[in-house]
Amino acid sequence: MTIAGERTLPTREEIFAAHGGGKLATALTAPLADARDLAVAYTPGVAEVSRAIAAEPALAARYTWTNRLVAVVSDGTAVLGLGAIGPRAALPVMEGKSALFKAFAGLDSIPLVLDTTDVDEIVETLVRLRPSFGAVNLEDVAAPRCFELERRLVEALDCPVMHDDQHGTAIVVLAALRGACAVQGRDPSGLRVVISGAGAAGVACARILLAAGVRDVIVLDSRGVLDPGRGGEKGAVAAVTNPRGVAGGIAEALEGADVFVGLSSALLPEQLLARMAPDGIVFALSNPDPEVHPEVARRHAGVVATGRSDFPNQINNVLAFPGVFRGALDAGARRITEAMKLAAADAIFSVAREELSVDAIVPSPFDPRVAPAVSAAVAAAADASGNAG
Amino acid sequence: MTIAGERTLPTREEIFAAHGGGKLATALTAPLADARDLAVAYTPGVAEVSRAIAAEPALAARYTWTNRLVAVVSDGTAVLGLGAIGPRAALPVMEGKSALFKAFAGLDSIPLVLDTTDVDEIVETLVRLRPSFGAVNLEDVAAPRCFELERRLVEALDCPVMHDDQHGTAIVVLAALRGACAVQGRDPSGLRVVISGAGAAGVACARILLAAGVRDVIVLDSRGVLDPGRGGEKGAVAAVTNPRGVAGGIAEALEGADVFVGLSSALLPEQLLARMAPDGIVFALSNPDPEVHPEVARRHAGVVATGRSDFPNQINNVLAFPGVFRGALDAGARRITEAMKLAAADAIFSVAREELSVDAIVPSPFDPRVAPAVSAAVAAAADASGNAG
Repeated sequence: MTIAGERTLPTREEIFAAHGGGKLATALTAPLADARDLAVAYTPGVAEVSRAIAAEPALAARYTWTNRLVAVVSDGTAVLGLGAIGPRAALPVMEGKSALFKAFAGLDSIPLVLDTTDVDEIVETLVRLRPSFGAVNLEDVAAPRCFELERRLVEALDCPVMHDDQHGTAIVVLAALRGACAVQGRDPSGLRVVISGAGAAGVACARILLAAGVRDVIVLDSRGVLDPGRGGEKGAVAAVTNPRGVAGGIAEALEGADVFVGLSSALLPEQLLARMAPDGIVFALSNPDPEVHPEVARRHAGVVATGRSDFPNQINNVLAFPGVFRGALDAGARRITEAMKLAAADAIFSVAREELSVDAIVPSPFDPRVAPAVSAAVAAAADASGNAG
Repeated sequence: MTIAGERTLPTREEIFAAHGGGKLATALTAPLADARDLAVAYTPGVAEVSRAIAAEPALAARYTWTNRLVAVVSDGTAVLGLGAIGPRAALPVMEGKSALFKAFAGLDSIPLVLDTTDVDEIVETLVRLRPSFGAVNLEDVAAPRCFELERRLVEALDCPVMHDDQHGTAIVVLAALRGACAVQGRDPSGLRVVISGAGAAGVACARILLAAGVRDVIVLDSRGVLDPGRGGEKGAVAAVTNPRGVAGGIAEALEGADVFVGLSSALLPEQLLARMAPDGIVFALSNPDPEVHPEVARRHAGVVATGRSDFPNQINNVLAFPGVFRGALDAGARRITEAMKLAAADAIFSVAREELSVDAIVPSPFDPRVAPAVSAAVAAAADASGNAG
């Protein structure tokens, strides 16, 4: 089976040419062309600003770039689908992520790749660097370590921290599910949802769907439906999901299911899809190869989405993270709370709702209305919860 | 006494307005405007680049921004003349430094301010971050800790590391001394030099002058002429300086001296200046208030320089560090060696020599010939010594 659109992907030569010298640069916000500029921006002028911040540290947010600066942090242990390829090889991805922050939300961003995979050491390193940035986007850290790392960083740092592979994905999946339900005239709370994959994204999707009121969620990994005896994050998720006590594997889980969310890269055979309830919703999000080809999925499902730009309904984190961080920083939030994530999903859906169709359950990643809508909703949710500076 | 030109300094309002939101930003090297751009710069295209670096880590220098990226690192313990005001208050200075790297040498640069002053912890932090940058400019770290910190970082990191308060200053002082000697037709090796101040800059100046062939250097701090019994860096410098065994304070040291280099902010009374040999050289480098007003100094000395832009002969580090780091990175150097520093001083002098006068012993900080000349000389010195990648 050839995947449609595959040939429109850029060539190897084009890709390497575009990455030569990296994808990021620094820039000055004001010229440094003469002695007066130097006296303002550097010595002796800057001493006034430093003295003011020394007297009142909160002024750093006003007179440095930190209030719009996101550190994109990775240890290179789960890079795209490539696995633990290390911090140097992860850097092009983190530069790309930083570029997206700029392009989509006007935020500045520096990639920090770490030559350690030890949770204590990563936390310690970012605590020491804390005065250098305004927020932390964790990226491509392997599960289950990513759960502990994010939790520890949220405790240790008085600034927004979010592991995008978890929550960015979860926010967009929730937005897409709202869109699909709106197209079909269904209520999300009554759905039976099956999530295939219990890594960073699968776990976070299960949690946000529960928080949004979905009651029947089943999560599986390669060993089958999670049960509470598994321990760790998987056990914790098992304890709050699978209300009907389904046992077994994907075949048992899909029996009568309304929604399939694929986050595992495990292929989904067509005969299993046929077990789902009629007019179902299929999100086949593995990249570059979806769990099931969308044309095949459409034979059994009413709404189909993938992670790819060459099919309809692209579920892409870029719909969420730029606006989430922008909103959190604009509000001076110290945390990215569950309420802020739910507000982000609502905002994405609210943009989609304006031109909703079976092939447009989410906005295009390039829809310029999305990041401002998400940012405003997230900032409002931060303020409403008192989580602001 | 009013210092001439003081009133041309920018106002407080002008300074704070210019620092609003910080002085740095990130920028994209290529547009991210449509799905194809995204497929090239981010997924799926970036996976090719990450895979290539995973197979051959040296490719990170070609396909990321690290090969032109300087980390400007400070713990905020000796910020300008303000002392240990901490990392947050140091950040505006480090942003300014990063802006100078961009404006003067086209290098990208990120300020990293650290919430620790422990040498072990700073080294450990930068070792963990090593894959994120291409070079380290240490800035505003207090003596004597700065000596150990720089030494430890040079050992621990396989990339150029330089404490600019030491070596940037030393390079420009040497260049200026060559310029002054050329104006006066003197040979630097025969000079009697007195350095007032045994902090970061004083120690480094003494060492570079010795390396450049000056034989009679005396270094003092507030307790008088250094002697080898002092221990630490001061003792080490005492052991290789003061060949005539002068004892006492500034009065004894200046008796018959040819050169005074002020790096201490201790005021120098006119009657002490009168003890110098006729037609001497005075570098009164304390900022914003020189050790002696240049008009006063000119009554006793043949050549006078300060650190200020509103007097002739401004001795400013910006003549050195942008080109030094650019040359080291261009050459793929793993160290910034003594030979590279001497080459930088020679290059600055070679630009000054073209229009040399008693009021122009160094080029203007804004002379566009300086950074390329320094960069080329430093890269050549790196290659010549085999210190290249």
